[in-house]
Amino acid sequence: MRFIATTSSDGVTEQLFTLGEIPGVLWTPEGAAGTRPLIVMGHGGGQHKKAPGIVARAQRFVADGDFAVVAVDVPGHGDRPTDPEYDRIATENQARVDAGEELAPLIADFQALVARQTVPEWRAVLDAVQELDHVGAGPVGYWGVSLGCGLGVPFVAAEPRVRAAVLGLGGALASGEVAARISVPVEFLLQWDDERVPRAQSLALFDAFASVEKTLHANPGRHGEIPLFELDSAVRFFLRHLGR
Amino acid sequence: MRFIATTSSDGVTEQLFTLGEIPGVLWTPEGAAGTRPLIVMGHGGGQHKKAPGIVARAQRFVADGDFAVVAVDVPGHGDRPTDPEYDRIATENQARVDAGEELAPLIADFQALVARQTVPEWRAVLDAVQELDHVGAGPVGYWGVSLGCGLGVPFVAAEPRVRAAVLGLGGALASGEVAARISVPVEFLLQWDDERVPRAQSLALFDAFASVEKTLHANPGRHGEIPLFELDSAVRFFLRHLGR
Repeated sequence: MRFIATTSSDGVTEQLFTLGEIPGVLWTPEGAAGTRPLIVMGHGGGQHKKAPGIVARAQRFVADGDFAVVAVDVPGHGDRPTDPEYDRIATENQARVDAGEELAPLIADFQALVARQTVPEWRAVLDAVQELDHVGAGPVGYWGVSLGCGLGVPFVAAEPRVRAAVLGLGGALASGEVAARISVPVEFLLQWDDERVPRAQSLALFDAFASVEKTLHANPGRHGEIPLFELDSAVRFFLRHLGR
Repeated sequence: MRFIATTSSDGVTEQLFTLGEIPGVLWTPEGAAGTRPLIVMGHGGGQHKKAPGIVARAQRFVADGDFAVVAVDVPGHGDRPTDPEYDRIATENQARVDAGEELAPLIADFQALVARQTVPEWRAVLDAVQELDHVGAGPVGYWGVSLGCGLGVPFVAAEPRVRAAVLGLGGALASGEVAARISVPVEFLLQWDDERVPRAQSLALFDAFASVEKTLHANPGRHGEIPLFELDSAVRFFLRHLGR
């Protein structure tokens, strides 16, 4: 793990790093020392580790929860090179949608393919970050919607260190079978007028989680329009389950 | 409005009253003076104004929000005499269910009938309580699930003083058309394994509200098993919309 740059503002320290070929960013409380809960965040499709929605949420998690937060670029996103294989599939999928095929199953297959790469990458990042003195081996949470849900469900299912997850804007086609292996508390976000994920698919994914505690929060609006008050709810959800 | 008994404990004053033939209870912060937001609570079927689930929530609303809270007995419940007409219908409905008819449409018709009596009753209670010096004409909220939703939807639709409502455990069969006249913020509780209200009916009721801000909270469990953390959420919802 190699640190590239460290900056601090408003009580939050941001450290850019690389782990092998994976570019990442770690946020911690300024002057942090000792073990603390860690939230892994997965960004959306076409976004990157420092997309505004990721940064704003990470800052709240650090400020309100005294948590550490880590996010990395998904292959083909942010500071990572384009991947010819993924590009080929994306182009092919666009052609199939133009020819009248349904979008959701194509997204599902694509996310499952990418997850085969990102699950081991994120687990390696978790190993490395938990070695740091100001993070340590505390409880771990996961936050990710849309692509961050499609990749997050297999990550949470595979990683026993994750104790609670905020997921959403994803459907059962992509993640239903894997979701049935998740038993930690889940807060699941659904946009009632989502133009990308059919409502029934989202409800089916919520249904699939094996968690005793799972809570569905559905709000009006399109895919990208999660209301601000859901961030307050996510903070409280992580405080409840990761402690502090 | 006639006050019958006043007691205080843990900072909450409880005043039993009657308004005409309606027995009610008003909770306020001990020593309260001046105008404050008021939450009207509707109890569930077979319950009454001081059912444990009502009292526990009312105490939290008073303690955490500095709100006033009022609840009255629904006809045929609590300290009210049995109503021969309602009793006759209930007996008849039970026979129809035993004979194989669906329960949900029967409940829907029954609640619509009772609402024709309770909406004007609750509006009269609201008039009277807002005359009191320690309540006053502040913003009004409504909380009610199950029967409290079936009767609450027509109340919230009819009463412009209500600015925010927590509803749930109810279906579109009972309240769908009236719900379309509600435009204030709604937090809607759905139990994923509800044995009394079909899930599709609950989702359809949530869909029917005309509110720009409405949020569906669905949790695993049966009709009576709303998780405790939803009370925390209701407190914050009312604080956000009724101010304080």
